[in-house]
Amino acid sequence: MSWLSISPDSHFSIANIPFGVITTSSDATKRPAVAIGDYALDLKVFSTAGGFSSCPEIQSHVSVFASESLNAFAGLGRPFHRLVREFLQSVFRADTEVPRVLKDNDRLRETALLPRADVQNHLPLTVGDYTDFYAGKNHAFNVGALFRGPDNALQPNYTHLPVAYHGRASSVVISGTPIRRPWGQILKDPRAEPKVPSLSPCEKMDLELEMGMFICRENQLGHPIPVADAEDYVFGYVLMNDWSARDIQAWEYIPLGPFTAKNLGTSISAWVVLADALAGAKTAGIAHDHALLPYLEEKSRENCLDIQLEVELTTGNGNKTTIAKSNSKNLLWSWPQMIAHHTITGCNLRTGDLLGSGTITGDSPGSEGSLLEQTQGGKTTVQLQGGEERKFLQDGDTLTIRGWAGREGALIGFGEVAGTVQPALPLF
Amino acid sequence: MSWLSISPDSHFSIANIPFGVITTSSDATKRPAVAIGDYALDLKVFSTAGGFSSCPEIQSHVSVFASESLNAFAGLGRPFHRLVREFLQSVFRADTEVPRVLKDNDRLRETALLPRADVQNHLPLTVGDYTDFYAGKNHAFNVGALFRGPDNALQPNYTHLPVAYHGRASSVVISGTPIRRPWGQILKDPRAEPKVPSLSPCEKMDLELEMGMFICRENQLGHPIPVADAEDYVFGYVLMNDWSARDIQAWEYIPLGPFTAKNLGTSISAWVVLADALAGAKTAGIAHDHALLPYLEEKSRENCLDIQLEVELTTGNGNKTTIAKSNSKNLLWSWPQMIAHHTITGCNLRTGDLLGSGTITGDSPGSEGSLLEQTQGGKTTVQLQGGEERKFLQDGDTLTIRGWAGREGALIGFGEVAGTVQPALPLF
Repeated sequence: MSWLSISPDSHFSIANIPFGVITTSSDATKRPAVAIGDYALDLKVFSTAGGFSSCPEIQSHVSVFASESLNAFAGLGRPFHRLVREFLQSVFRADTEVPRVLKDNDRLRETALLPRADVQNHLPLTVGDYTDFYAGKNHAFNVGALFRGPDNALQPNYTHLPVAYHGRASSVVISGTPIRRPWGQILKDPRAEPKVPSLSPCEKMDLELEMGMFICRENQLGHPIPVADAEDYVFGYVLMNDWSARDIQAWEYIPLGPFTAKNLGTSISAWVVLADALAGAKTAGIAHDHALLPYLEEKSRENCLDIQLEVELTTGNGNKTTIAKSNSKNLLWSWPQMIAHHTITGCNLRTGDLLGSGTITGDSPGSEGSLLEQTQGGKTTVQLQGGEERKFLQDGDTLTIRGWAGREGALIGFGEVAGTVQPALPLF
Repeated sequence: MSWLSISPDSHFSIANIPFGVITTSSDATKRPAVAIGDYALDLKVFSTAGGFSSCPEIQSHVSVFASESLNAFAGLGRPFHRLVREFLQSVFRADTEVPRVLKDNDRLRETALLPRADVQNHLPLTVGDYTDFYAGKNHAFNVGALFRGPDNALQPNYTHLPVAYHGRASSVVISGTPIRRPWGQILKDPRAEPKVPSLSPCEKMDLELEMGMFICRENQLGHPIPVADAEDYVFGYVLMNDWSARDIQAWEYIPLGPFTAKNLGTSISAWVVLADALAGAKTAGIAHDHALLPYLEEKSRENCLDIQLEVELTTGNGNKTTIAKSNSKNLLWSWPQMIAHHTITGCNLRTGDLLGSGTITGDSPGSEGSLLEQTQGGKTTVQLQGGEERKFLQDGDTLTIRGWAGREGALIGFGEVAGTVQPALPLF
């Protein structure tokens, strides 16, 4: 399908064209790029060389490709993203009608089409606010059952609104960033009275398998976004690992929710898969067991994304184990419903805001998106290759989440989000 | 003390010199300014005209006064803020040694020293992340007692760590911005089973009397800030009204904390009072009844600020009533302790981050910083001038919070933060 040689198992087929921000050893200036096969197309070089000049609608906005983040590009709206993605697909197609733009342009191929192995990725957008939802119903049930038993696992509000909390934007980091095991307040013996916490390195360090979504359009403060319009606000999606300190969280979260247990780092994958690229991956999510309030009601049941997800744990000894397989359709709430609820009281979204789905756990063993669930809060262990086992993460463990939609030869994938747990620093 | 005529009851005495961002009808470009008496000194005009040229250390950084926010100025650090504040005090002193800079410079006085009544204020800093603490112990006790009775009012963690949640930065607005009564999910009859919420305009709209603090220095992700160093990260303070939809909050907040009930708007006062200006206002806060973990222990007990606070409610009919008098010393945790706790797990702060204190309620009737407390959740009413009364806020009500330290003739005040409740919009 492309004149460029792309492996059939590449996440970055011509059907994808995801956007990111790169630097190279020869140019430390951050700039937009798209991923295709084993390459990254440097959009700053490509646009400066006139790559878009045959499309006046794009050409008149090429300054966004000289920006150090994708915010300016994202802010131009979905019709513009569609135009650019389709134009780039046309440039890479085997039967391209514009061969001289790149295919037959040796010099531009050399300067703009860079081996991905040689580029460094950076946060694709400057994150405004970061909000983390809790839309994974199976996860919410499992965690609730651990603490309150299966009969009271879900709180009464859970099936009526997409539960969420405001997260920390400053500590959202790009895949590959090491995550430091935190110190924090921990109640080591919850049954002792009086309850006196210790200051200690986290002993229950965990992952959360999530999807993230970037916003590309603003609403005005005081003006909710109707659920039917919400897709227009979706720039695209990334994989997310919302690192969690379970022991710190358990002590601190009453009554205002997680705080220091969650602000130590949230990792996202490097390439934003555009909403358009996943238009063919719509599927039904978890069914609702009662009618929704009108502002959350959608016309179609096919409102979730069918994205395969895998979590791999690589120990410091190099043993690799796939510890979870899940799918992003295991959500009770769709992204448009999350947007509609986020803004129902008038909250204003901005381009670059990041929304997380919450942990995505399937309905069978081996699909749990957190160790908290897999080990029942540390009561059991996860068996790893090489005879190792885990209750929670150990120093030197690397977590890698991968995700993809579509079929071989036309995969629409995210690549991966990875991070390694570093030992706690001595405190002061 | 100043050659400029400043009323003894002005919040903006020569002892203060707070910083803000202004525009005027003749120049719509946002730019830094300081408030003094009934005037604002336009720092862009002042610095462009060479106002700082006799101080090379300031002169070499005057580009920060051409910025549209105070972030660049703040990011230069506390020694620089001190230098600029003291220089401006020297310019305004009656016995100024540099009379030709402003005092005897008619032309610059005309272009740079603007009547405050003629300037429009804007958000002083671009807010990175916004975090709201819950450090007002009397408030936490009163609210806890309402829901769980006085014996279990405070959760076990409350006296061990500064409870907080991540707030919404995008909806932080400048004083004077109208606040729209929100729609949201409300459980109108909490005793009915099954629990089925309604979509309704908020019926329990409330204020929260708070102080806000802006951060002026970054720490690296993974590196906590020691409490002894935390003062270096404090740029300055503002008054804050954290508007709250109590009925929406009650239904949504379990288990992850407040979300849509709090992201509808948070108002702050226009002029940031520098940390240095309040160095003489240190006083002891609420005493701890047990030892703290070492990362929260401070050498001095004089770690809180002695700032008088007043809340005035003006009804749509024009009746004005002071509904609360409090003081910012009614906090269990100091700002350095909040910073130390915020970063204990390694969370990175950035210049422009905003921290809220939580609602500041005193220890006597009439000092409650919210209507929730004053009316026992709506069981009683607050009597207003003109025979009006309130359980919660009505459309057209204007809330004005004022605050000041120091004594007449040398007041270090904040001016006010005000906002008017607008009626709910028709939904879609």
